[in-house]
Amino acid sequence: MKLHTAARAPNPRRVEMFIAEKGITGIERIEVDLLKGEHRREEFQRLNPAVQVPVLELDDGTMLAETRAISGYLESLHPEPNLLGRTPRERAEIEMWDRRVELGLGFAIRDWVRHSHPALAVLEGRQFPDYAQVQAARARAHARWLDQELAGRPFIAGTRFTIADITAFCALEFARLVKLSPAAEGLQALQRWRDAIAARPSAVT
Amino acid sequence: MKLHTAARAPNPRRVEMFIAEKGITGIERIEVDLLKGEHRREEFQRLNPAVQVPVLELDDGTMLAETRAISGYLESLHPEPNLLGRTPRERAEIEMWDRRVELGLGFAIRDWVRHSHPALAVLEGRQFPDYAQVQAARARAHARWLDQELAGRPFIAGTRFTIADITAFCALEFARLVKLSPAAEGLQALQRWRDAIAARPSAVT
Repeated sequence: MKLHTAARAPNPRRVEMFIAEKGITGIERIEVDLLKGEHRREEFQRLNPAVQVPVLELDDGTMLAETRAISGYLESLHPEPNLLGRTPRERAEIEMWDRRVELGLGFAIRDWVRHSHPALAVLEGRQFPDYAQVQAARARAHARWLDQELAGRPFIAGTRFTIADITAFCALEFARLVKLSPAAEGLQALQRWRDAIAARPSAVT
Repeated sequence: MKLHTAARAPNPRRVEMFIAEKGITGIERIEVDLLKGEHRREEFQRLNPAVQVPVLELDDGTMLAETRAISGYLESLHPEPNLLGRTPRERAEIEMWDRRVELGLGFAIRDWVRHSHPALAVLEGRQFPDYAQVQAARARAHARWLDQELAGRPFIAGTRFTIADITAFCALEFARLVKLSPAAEGLQALQRWRDAIAARPSAVT
């Protein structure tokens, strides 16, 4: 298998953390330079018409895109440690939290960064700074909610580390571009959780 | 089980189509009036702090939110007809397409509607009409891609009906608010697919 990826982008980082937590070895990496627009070139668009990384290329040439779909496929090949849930009920609760932190926190941060950070102007085409500020408020509100949740349990989806922790951690890492810090916002439980995740070997880039 | 839902919103409609395709009966519906802001009231926020419908309330009081997580849980209880994939490989490919049409097409349409339609102003707070136009262009580009894909196969994720068809269909239904029509855009394959899905009993509202 080959992973078409971009080392510093948030979604590739999610897959890399997932792979590291699983201890999966032997996947070849092919680097795509987003700032040079390599993902928009015709040869990459043939791999993934959605022009996004990461893409997992299977040995028969099948191209699997979308971080969560790739993660589910890798978990089927490498079931342990389990990161997506064991029972239907647990799978649903983990997916609920994974989506909440991806769509509620991660997308707000993504649009905040994309529409306000000078370095991202080249990727976005046109930036909407006022819209970025609405997303900033949304991201902060979601972070406050997470802080309350994490005051009562050690991980995003419950009592053990799951894919939802990877998703939320990588979102907060990306938020460093807009200098969002849980501690500076007074969110102690979120900061404590963040620091615990950052101390895992899988979090080292 | 009880489903906290809002009849005409896109995500509740996805779950209703999923339930109808499965032929699941006996789920009580509790209507939440979004335009009256009932989802923002404290009693609903206790069910789902993300203030979104649908929410599936299990018999032990557990609240399961997020459409795709609810769908996965329902499929575990009612495996046939299969809508999420049978093998790990098929599950991954269906999830890839489900995410593509949800995040690529559905979110573009959602933001286009929310930031341009007068009736949605009350939900959105502040609308960004220029941003809506960027999302309109994004939605149209995604629709053109889907049209090319559907010229070569009958359903979004391959040769059979899956959750990805439900997601894409409900997105296009919501796009009627901004008068997006595949036929009017010259997208014959997408229109043919859309009309075939609309003819299914599960598509009747």
